[in-house]
Amino acid sequence: MTEGKGLRGAYDTVRARTEQLCAPLHVEDYVVQSMPDASPVKWHLAHTTWFFETFVLTQACRDCAPFDPAFNYLFNSYYNAVGERLPRPRRGLITRPTVAEVYRYRAHVDSAMRRLLSAPSSLVAERTVLGLNHEQQHQELLLTDLKHAFACNPLRPTYLPPRQGGASLGRAPAPVRWCSYPAALRWLGHAGGGFAYDNEGPRHQAFVHAFSLASRPLANAEVRTFLEDGGYDRPECWLSDGWAARQAQGWSAPLYWEERDGHWWHFTLEGMAPVEDAEAACHLSYYEADALARWAGARLPTEAEWETAALACPLEGTFLESERFRPGPPCTEAGHPAQMFGDVWEWTASPYVGYPGYRPPEGALGEYNGKFMCNQFVLRGGSFATPASHLRRSYRNFFPPDARWQFAGARLARD
Amino acid sequence: MTEGKGLRGAYDTVRARTEQLCAPLHVEDYVVQSMPDASPVKWHLAHTTWFFETFVLTQACRDCAPFDPAFNYLFNSYYNAVGERLPRPRRGLITRPTVAEVYRYRAHVDSAMRRLLSAPSSLVAERTVLGLNHEQQHQELLLTDLKHAFACNPLRPTYLPPRQGGASLGRAPAPVRWCSYPAALRWLGHAGGGFAYDNEGPRHQAFVHAFSLASRPLANAEVRTFLEDGGYDRPECWLSDGWAARQAQGWSAPLYWEERDGHWWHFTLEGMAPVEDAEAACHLSYYEADALARWAGARLPTEAEWETAALACPLEGTFLESERFRPGPPCTEAGHPAQMFGDVWEWTASPYVGYPGYRPPEGALGEYNGKFMCNQFVLRGGSFATPASHLRRSYRNFFPPDARWQFAGARLARD
Amino acid sequence: MTEGKGLRGAYDTVRARTEQLCAPLHVEDYVVQSMPDASPVKWHLAHTTWFFETFVLTQACRDCAPFDPAFNYLFNSYYNAVGERLPRPRRGLITRPTVAEVYRYRAHVDSAMRRLLSAPSSLVAERTVLGLNHEQQHQELLLTDLKHAFACNPLRPTYLPPRQGGASLGRAPAPVRWCSYPAALRWLGHAGGGFAYDNEGPRHQAFVHAFSLASRPLANAEVRTFLEDGGYDRPECWLSDGWAARQAQGWSAPLYWEERDGHWWHFTLEGMAPVEDAEAACHLSYYEADALARWAGARLPTEAEWETAALACPLEGTFLESERFRPGPPCTEAGHPAQMFGDVWEWTASPYVGYPGYRPPEGALGEYNGKFMCNQFVLRGGSFATPASHLRRSYRNFFPPDARWQFAGARLARD
Amino acid sequence: MTEGKGLRGAYDTVRARTEQLCAPLHVEDYVVQSMPDASPVKWHLAHTTWFFETFVLTQACRDCAPFDPAFNYLFNSYYNAVGERLPRPRRGLITRPTVAEVYRYRAHVDSAMRRLLSAPSSLVAERTVLGLNHEQQHQELLLTDLKHAFACNPLRPTYLPPRQGGASLGRAPAPVRWCSYPAALRWLGHAGGGFAYDNEGPRHQAFVHAFSLASRPLANAEVRTFLEDGGYDRPECWLSDGWAARQAQGWSAPLYWEERDGHWWHFTLEGMAPVEDAEAACHLSYYEADALARWAGARLPTEAEWETAALACPLEGTFLESERFRPGPPCTEAGHPAQMFGDVWEWTASPYVGYPGYRPPEGALGEYNGKFMCNQFVLRGGSFATPASHLRRSYRNFFPPDARWQFAGARLARD
Repeated sequence: MTEGKGLRGAYDTVRARTEQLCAPLHVEDYVVQSMPDASPVKWHLAHTTWFFETFVLTQACRDCAPFDPAFNYLFNSYYNAVGERLPRPRRGLITRPTVAEVYRYRAHVDSAMRRLLSAPSSLVAERTVLGLNHEQQHQELLLTDLKHAFACNPLRPTYLPPRQGGASLGRAPAPVRWCSYPAALRWLGHAGGGFAYDNEGPRHQAFVHAFSLASRPLANAEVRTFLEDGGYDRPECWLSDGWAARQAQGWSAPLYWEERDGHWWHFTLEGMAPVEDAEAACHLSYYEADALARWAGARLPTEAEWETAALACPLEGTFLESERFRPGPPCTEAGHPAQMFGDVWEWTASPYVGYPGYRPPEGALGEYNGKFMCNQFVLRGGSFATPASHLRRSYRNFFPPDARWQFAGARLARD
Repeated sequence: MTEGKGLRGAYDTVRARTEQLCAPLHVEDYVVQSMPDASPVKWHLAHTTWFFETFVLTQACRDCAPFDPAFNYLFNSYYNAVGERLPRPRRGLITRPTVAEVYRYRAHVDSAMRRLLSAPSSLVAERTVLGLNHEQQHQELLLTDLKHAFACNPLRPTYLPPRQGGASLGRAPAPVRWCSYPAALRWLGHAGGGFAYDNEGPRHQAFVHAFSLASRPLANAEVRTFLEDGGYDRPECWLSDGWAARQAQGWSAPLYWEERDGHWWHFTLEGMAPVEDAEAACHLSYYEADALARWAGARLPTEAEWETAALACPLEGTFLESERFRPGPPCTEAGHPAQMFGDVWEWTASPYVGYPGYRPPEGALGEYNGKFMCNQFVLRGGSFATPASHLRRSYRNFFPPDARWQFAGARLARD
Repeated sequence: MTEGKGLRGAYDTVRARTEQLCAPLHVEDYVVQSMPDASPVKWHLAHTTWFFETFVLTQACRDCAPFDPAFNYLFNSYYNAVGERLPRPRRGLITRPTVAEVYRYRAHVDSAMRRLLSAPSSLVAERTVLGLNHEQQHQELLLTDLKHAFACNPLRPTYLPPRQGGASLGRAPAPVRWCSYPAALRWLGHAGGGFAYDNEGPRHQAFVHAFSLASRPLANAEVRTFLEDGGYDRPECWLSDGWAARQAQGWSAPLYWEERDGHWWHFTLEGMAPVEDAEAACHLSYYEADALARWAGARLPTEAEWETAALACPLEGTFLESERFRPGPPCTEAGHPAQMFGDVWEWTASPYVGYPGYRPPEGALGEYNGKFMCNQFVLRGGSFATPASHLRRSYRNFFPPDARWQFAGARLARD
Repeated sequence: MTEGKGLRGAYDTVRARTEQLCAPLHVEDYVVQSMPDASPVKWHLAHTTWFFETFVLTQACRDCAPFDPAFNYLFNSYYNAVGERLPRPRRGLITRPTVAEVYRYRAHVDSAMRRLLSAPSSLVAERTVLGLNHEQQHQELLLTDLKHAFACNPLRPTYLPPRQGGASLGRAPAPVRWCSYPAALRWLGHAGGGFAYDNEGPRHQAFVHAFSLASRPLANAEVRTFLEDGGYDRPECWLSDGWAARQAQGWSAPLYWEERDGHWWHFTLEGMAPVEDAEAACHLSYYEADALARWAGARLPTEAEWETAALACPLEGTFLESERFRPGPPCTEAGHPAQMFGDVWEWTASPYVGYPGYRPPEGALGEYNGKFMCNQFVLRGGSFATPASHLRRSYRNFFPPDARWQFAGARLARD
């Protein structure tokens, strides 16, 4: 993320980007927590700041007083080693500190960080890079959580001004081609050079069986056909737990979809818009992605398969939600998908576990990834909301299989 | 509430009072809903306005467009006859309309109301008086809900600046005297003259057995002794449902009480303060009030008994929370309690049902009181947060027996 | 219940009756608990026996060992003063003692009781009478709980052989007449002479306003019309809590009713049978009874009104469920309803509270009634399943307003 | 399971074994369902019979009427393709068919099966073998579920007569040795020859990194030390979801453990017994197994590692619960663990997913395994309650990570 520019410049860029994302918001929009898994915007702003204060500033200056000692309780996300914390479902109950105070907190920590970054120790540099990647993760979460909160409001406020008129573009998606890969013992995981999270290593060998991967992710057209084919009402398409979730939560279409007068619309950060056939399907749970794959006579790829295919794929990203679609040759001349980043995260069939030889780091930062290796599935790629400099071929995102509020779709695979 | 001044003046006074109550707040404080039974301040501001718009303006001018048609969905509390509405537990998810927009809504409705009140029809006048009483109820609820939300924040924000130092005043409460009343067939309910809610009538006769009533409500000193006597751990003091609530919710002291270094403190609108022995006990559920009475070898009064005693009692009120105490002669020369209003609401032993001959009015406003006559207990009197002009001897407040966030205490009775 | 025959004979009669009620059962039928509010038959058999052992035998012989010391934990219902106990929802998890052992327990306690009853002290006699009334209550509960359990089984086992063919009798109910009563100061509560529970006294005066009472309870015909009139879908007919219960629990007809090919059937102890228009409606919650009354432009009677009317009504009872109907003159010549007992319990509009001057007895038996005086409504009369000798004009049955598995209907009143 | 004897003989043996397991039971013991994940013994007896009736008899004779058409609803476990079914948590509500009727059902199906097995088609033979393996699975489940139900009863009934006196044997477990394996591309999955479930194939290659495996499973001694070291109170030992489960469910020791006067006891099928240090630890959830491994500075093995080590290990089993321990050389001369079967199931670190190329079979039997490949972890080996002929090196058992009522322990691994 930080290659090719100084750390101080990277710090300024990332921190400013977070605040730019908040420019369209009113104070009220910062406070709300629309479900236990989401967090208020205000909390994201403060938590990312607390991360620098706790893991960089306090480490570098043991005698420096924190901005406010109470913030460690309020803005610690899940680090048991750092102390007690506010239970996650209560983050939306906290009116104070006010938004203005949180911005003062950011400014205060930014000043101290900039002083430190004028001559950083290697530990400071390493932790700062981690903190910036952490903040980039929260930039995306800020948007997913905000979208969920806005969607709860029957007034349907919009984050960005609407771009589309009421009429659908009506374009069909490109036909799927299958990019094929032979069986091989392959090297996987982060190869070194630049930042990566601990869970992207150790680099290791794995035997990857022959497979084919679809040239593009599932499009809304396929989801619509699945719907029309009764897919949401046919248990044979679903995992047992998936069917139970569908029943318990009453799913009958992807999250944010609504039928109006026989046409499908969905709520976007730019307001209600027609569901475009050609766009990558989004806001799918793992269960829905898996059901779509079964229904289509295919399956989801493992993350080893996905990473194998991604090695030759360009890292591009940062689109508007309404531009979640780029046509392109189905497989490149070299036989790879032309695009695997920057539209939607792609659910893989791989449960999230550590790679062979993985050990979490010592100390509080060992809690960053390791303790979540259970009951989640890996997503690969990156969405339109993922900062472009945050995309990486070895990146392992992960969510529980019933999570739908992320910008997550799927790509099919076959043996 | 409106005696002695013009309706237009009353309107201005009450509406202004609501906004004055919000003067100490930040925008963030308006948005939060800390539990399903509470509402955000913003919602109180808008709902009371919607009440005038829906039941006065729209009735008077059938063709007048509402300020925003969506507000009927957002700010209808529970009137089925007026249409669908936002489920109560979701009121805290609504970031828009912003606080500023809600104030514009208030101003818009106030303008129209003032025009209408320059020559009101009798229906307009009657509905306006109802709306003002309704808004006064919400003035108190706004404070109870705000106190609950502030108490959820570990930073413990305060609504008003602290008045007390850390030291307790150490005053003991006045000893209880018993004011006695003979058995008699008595007239109860609102006698006419001035506003009353429908549930305060019909005026009717009831045979009230001989009883004695305590000269003052239970004080914190008695609650402390109950605590020290193990009252919260002795099922024989409690109703069966009360004991179940105490177990399920982990009650070990009144709401907002905290023990620090062997001393009891409680959260108030003016911040953390020592629990003063002489103050009226507050934030009790019915179950706790009943248990305290059993433990004391007494009982709670029926509402008939309470109203009998209150007939000669002065209507005074509006105190600071920290002044929830007025000494005074235990019974007046005429044998009545000297004070029954303006400190805490007093739980009675009477389940909330209609009086003999009670019928809810026709139409949506019939939903104001009648449909709640089940699973609640009547409270009488009025708290420091009740507007003084809203106090009334026939007033019937009501809450479920496990509600603790109201400004509610109790007064003992004996046969 | 015991008038006109010796206590020893009454003991034998009641105890034998309980076991006769179990004659049609298989061992498996004794074990199941179909919901937390119900108990297994085996538990009823053992609990009623434990009652005699604990409150009679152990009192009379302090040194006598209990049959099995563990039974005090298993078969104590709710007496905190007697020690810890198995949580009610877990009663259906207990395979041992076996049914055969429970019958041995009964025989053991019966032997000891018979010895004691050959020359009972006054305390023994008083406690025995209480125990027999207690067992009679459980005889009815045994049937209500068994019916609920059988109804959970899609095989629909029957307790008694079916009496009816598939065809409805098609009789219409007798038209309702209104029996009128003037306002008066009246004496209410148990007048002495024979057994009564503590909650039926003290006898006391109350001013009862003028009212009329329907000559018969609501019949299935009226429930059907309510249904056809959309009553289950019209919130304006319902209390607010009633509507919430109806929504949460999906009520669309009384418990055990099923529509088949456009006709209403219901599950009875004698199997599935057509809903007979002329029969008293049964398995109504308070909320449904109240909604039916509102819809009919009437209301439920208070228990004072009900008792006033019942004073001249004969105590008759014990019918088959399929004979829940006796025609008869709508009001007697003296102006009273001709039948108020022995078909269905009748919900009154009165929340269950103590009468003026009521105090629970000291000791564990004080828990029999007093601690439940909250969140319940009084039912009067008695059902076909109530033992005839258990019917009483001052009898106060009580259940929460959402309880539907009791044999409970309603009778209308008017001002 | 059926090698070396005729299919008809195998049928008789397995079916008889199920009924022998029930010999110590009373009728009451067959009925109870102690939690939603468990089933009543009666249900196990009937469901295994329904399996033969539905998937063998009905397939072989399309015109043959089922024993009772209602049984398809009652005793279908989870096959959506076979129709609607009784929700699992309601299995304990069903008093009928009685136990005697269920035995008649078994006898009826056994007769028909024996006729069919005198000259079975290949489909019949194949399905019968599946049905017998299915019944063997339920033999173990019957004991796990029965143990859970008995443990719910404060009387602590026992399934088998107690074998141990009150005194612990006091033996220490054998010291752990580490059996080492080099990195290699290995073949995994069922190699053909004899029965295997679909999920044990396809046989495939996987690259298995170098690892060491403990010579024996974790013993109670290690669990006790973990306990004494505060392991149940130290979040850093646990996965995040594991810690949440431990908090929510209040775990402070393995299931069935109880501390009495400073000594640990546990409930067994032979009654309460001292926890023997030398025995394999049992009734651990995956979360506890994982926490124990972290605390011990090790990890759980993957199923590839486990299967690699098991290839040379003898298949022995069927012990009493009290003999869950066999000493032995820590690694065999060939460097393998000497015992990996027949004491406790061993949690692996592998989430349950399909092997490369796995596809569920067509039709209802495709629901046997495939739809559960989500949110579970694989267990390998087999417990004392697993029929000896059911043990297999490629066998994949699976349960959710919070399941504790299975006979499940763990074995450590290291890189």
